[in-house]
Amino acid sequence: MELKMSRDELDAFMHRAFPQAAHDYCIDRVDAGELTARLKVDDRHLRPGDTVSGPAMFALADVSVYLAILAVIGPEALAVTTNCSIDFIRKPAAGVDLIAEAKLLKLGRALAVGDVLIRSQGRSEPVARATLTYSIPPKR
Amino acid sequence: MELKMSRDELDAFMHRAFPQAAHDYCIDRVDAGELTARLKVDDRHLRPGDTVSGPAMFALADVSVYLAILAVIGPEALAVTTNCSIDFIRKPAAGVDLIAEAKLLKLGRALAVGDVLIRSQGRSEPVARATLTYSIPPKR
Amino acid sequence: MELKMSRDELDAFMHRAFPQAAHDYCIDRVDAGELTARLKVDDRHLRPGDTVSGPAMFALADVSVYLAILAVIGPEALAVTTNCSIDFIRKPAAGVDLIAEAKLLKLGRALAVGDVLIRSQGRSEPVARATLTYSIPPKR
Amino acid sequence: MELKMSRDELDAFMHRAFPQAAHDYCIDRVDAGELTARLKVDDRHLRPGDTVSGPAMFALADVSVYLAILAVIGPEALAVTTNCSIDFIRKPAAGVDLIAEAKLLKLGRALAVGDVLIRSQGRSEPVARATLTYSIPPKR
Repeated sequence: MELKMSRDELDAFMHRAFPQAAHDYCIDRVDAGELTARLKVDDRHLRPGDTVSGPAMFALADVSVYLAILAVIGPEALAVTTNCSIDFIRKPAAGVDLIAEAKLLKLGRALAVGDVLIRSQGRSEPVARATLTYSIPPKR
Repeated sequence: MELKMSRDELDAFMHRAFPQAAHDYCIDRVDAGELTARLKVDDRHLRPGDTVSGPAMFALADVSVYLAILAVIGPEALAVTTNCSIDFIRKPAAGVDLIAEAKLLKLGRALAVGDVLIRSQGRSEPVARATLTYSIPPKR
Repeated sequence: MELKMSRDELDAFMHRAFPQAAHDYCIDRVDAGELTARLKVDDRHLRPGDTVSGPAMFALADVSVYLAILAVIGPEALAVTTNCSIDFIRKPAAGVDLIAEAKLLKLGRALAVGDVLIRSQGRSEPVARATLTYSIPPKR
Repeated sequence: MELKMSRDELDAFMHRAFPQAAHDYCIDRVDAGELTARLKVDDRHLRPGDTVSGPAMFALADVSVYLAILAVIGPEALAVTTNCSIDFIRKPAAGVDLIAEAKLLKLGRALAVGDVLIRSQGRSEPVARATLTYSIPPKR
């Protein structure tokens, strides 16, 4: 795997493609097949008890694997999420960002599969893990 | 299974517990072990191409099974999502609501499992399906 | 969806393609997009406590959705399982067969998705549920 | 996490508890929260095309996380698989064993969650990955 997009290019793409959601995230690091993204946790993401909501964690998992794929195949492709299994393992720590480390397990012509581990910033134990599959449409 | 909460009681609970998100949803029907919820699709839920975002569908699946459980065990319990597997099967139709039909497969003392099928209003083919597991904390 | 293979043709195919495993199963019913298969529970499938093993239930789920797909696309195709999420919900009843009801949710050109509910014969409550995704290779 | 059972104790337990299946597996390594198991691939595990069957990979994933849990909580507990999501990523190499590396993500009082990555011996790319959840019954 080679990197086709830099961190800055991915960031610009994200703001163009998802203007409503992009400001929630920060791309901390990108490598060929690996990407670290951060959810800048805000009131909007919280549930009673100051815990980050499930949908907010799902969205972070989805965006981080999606960007890891894009970084390698380039921005013209329109990968579509077809499946996700996600485990919510521990309550996130209050008042800190969530860090997602995504890793591609497969990048085929038609399907990509990635794993992601989500931690509260500064903690080693995972709060969630997910595996996502994307369908990659044939090049036009 | 018996019903402990009516549609109106569930609706009031949802607005109290999730004030930011509750206005996105409408509970169409509730029965013992079954519940139909609707996502009132809005610009906020859309991705480029007028398709409903994955996180918005995940949130609908989660809320519909969660409310189906609550309807049977009552509002004092704090069920927590521990696992979700979700398949995104077809592109939702543009400009219509999404209808989620949730069904409980198990309601044990410690674990509940529910299935949910999501369709675009007026269509018979599913756009997504999900299974969710909830941990039910012991009564205090 | 139209049916391309009858129950007898599916049965003959299964015995040709999986000679070691085929005698474990019986196809009870086949329809376009739906299939009922039975695991003829035997000592080999049991775990201590007379419960059917997880791998035996996984295999039943896999074979029933696989045959439901084959029934519609025909025997020449080589669908490959790419993903399964399975929930083990209750302990199966001792000494009776397991009945799997499979239903196709999608049958696209490249991907097929099916749901399956497994019950102990004569019981209404599910012992397991699974969703499986298959990759369908392009026609040669 | 501390180790309560050695490799030899786990091996003896496996042969006592699953006499029919235990001779298929070999425990290569055990550590607190991590375990490597091997499927000694045999004709019984194969499908046409010399590929290892899905159920055989599922069984390997299940046994490796199960033993990783047992190694830490001890043999008296009867952990039960409640959920598995498994991705079949590549065709296994022909004629070599499968190596499963299991890792516990959570070991709570009531629930344990583990990840497992399966590779063909001597290859670095994964052929399958799975996440499994186990319910741990309360101590009597």
